[in-house]
Amino acid sequence: MRQASTILSIDTPGRGFTDITRAMAEWLAGVGIEEGLVTLLCRHTSASLLIQENAAREVRVDLANWLDRLAPEGGHYVHDDEGPDDMPAHLKTVLTGVNLQIPVIDGQMALGTWQGIYLAEHRKRPHRREIAVHVMGD
Amino acid sequence: MRQASTILSIDTPGRGFTDITRAMAEWLAGVGIEEGLVTLLCRHTSASLLIQENAAREVRVDLANWLDRLAPEGGHYVHDDEGPDDMPAHLKTVLTGVNLQIPVIDGQMALGTWQGIYLAEHRKRPHRREIAVHVMGD
Amino acid sequence: MRQASTILSIDTPGRGFTDITRAMAEWLAGVGIEEGLVTLLCRHTSASLLIQENAAREVRVDLANWLDRLAPEGGHYVHDDEGPDDMPAHLKTVLTGVNLQIPVIDGQMALGTWQGIYLAEHRKRPHRREIAVHVMGD
Repeated sequence: MRQASTILSIDTPGRGFTDITRAMAEWLAGVGIEEGLVTLLCRHTSASLLIQENAAREVRVDLANWLDRLAPEGGHYVHDDEGPDDMPAHLKTVLTGVNLQIPVIDGQMALGTWQGIYLAEHRKRPHRREIAVHVMGD
Repeated sequence: MRQASTILSIDTPGRGFTDITRAMAEWLAGVGIEEGLVTLLCRHTSASLLIQENAAREVRVDLANWLDRLAPEGGHYVHDDEGPDDMPAHLKTVLTGVNLQIPVIDGQMALGTWQGIYLAEHRKRPHRREIAVHVMGD
Repeated sequence: MRQASTILSIDTPGRGFTDITRAMAEWLAGVGIEEGLVTLLCRHTSASLLIQENAAREVRVDLANWLDRLAPEGGHYVHDDEGPDDMPAHLKTVLTGVNLQIPVIDGQMALGTWQGIYLAEHRKRPHRREIAVHVMGD
């Protein structure tokens, strides 16, 4: 049984979803674990991680709009000194979460056919985001 | 230290919550881990996993209604070619999440007294759902 | 490779967020793991765990108000026999989640600079809450 960990840096183009499934699979192939557990932690409070549909792009359009409705700008927030998109970004991060765990079976992440791993950027402007990644197994 | 993993298949009766606590406990007893960590990943984008109250059935009725209010059908979604309940199902999956982790202490999952593990089906019709399960410990 | 687990007891002052980052770091230092994975499970259905901004207190004020809007009291719930704040507390727990996982790198939890670990109490009155904590690594 052994483990490996790294910090993955991802540049986001601003509000939206960046597919990191391939980056994760490549890192995992380099480590060479056949059975185990992968963990991701997004190290930010206005960006998050989620697993969602990787086929229809429209799903992510609807998801972004829905998050905007649930956590709108102009919501009379007390915390408003970092711009109108900052507090909504914190709320969207809480709703979607900063953690993911994926079992590794037969050398592959045990994702479903239609599942992709996404980094969700909730600020309007581009950011460089860090994800702590850990795997344990053999 | 050792590990085990499997794919659990669960038939859902359509929209609602299926208690999988016993199925998980039985699988874990078969593996025979005394201390460790259990991970679950729902391999779908319109069904999810959550831990909630296992006593009052009304809690799950209210939860289903609340999810319907937060992610309603007829919400002018761009993605609507898989039926009116499809995009709401994706949104409910994002809100509730597809991952759970449960420490194993003294041979038992360290759940609270009132906690049960539920597979949440967000589509109206019955589906067969797969959950990737992994345990590591000794 | 080794592991350790414990049940952490936290007294909450009622509705709000209690920073447990230091308690977690102290427990971890006592265990002495350099690289590994920490898992937390809140053993309740009306309190939860989240990682959020540890600097501006106003973020947590806005977060509490936002949760109140998404899961309001007086929402015509079927389950109302444990008080008006009970069903909203279950819903807020589902939205925020009861699990966290944090990679340990170089002997420290790999949290971002502005991230703190919070126990979120969703009931109005003070409660003693239990968190199952597990770490694995070496």
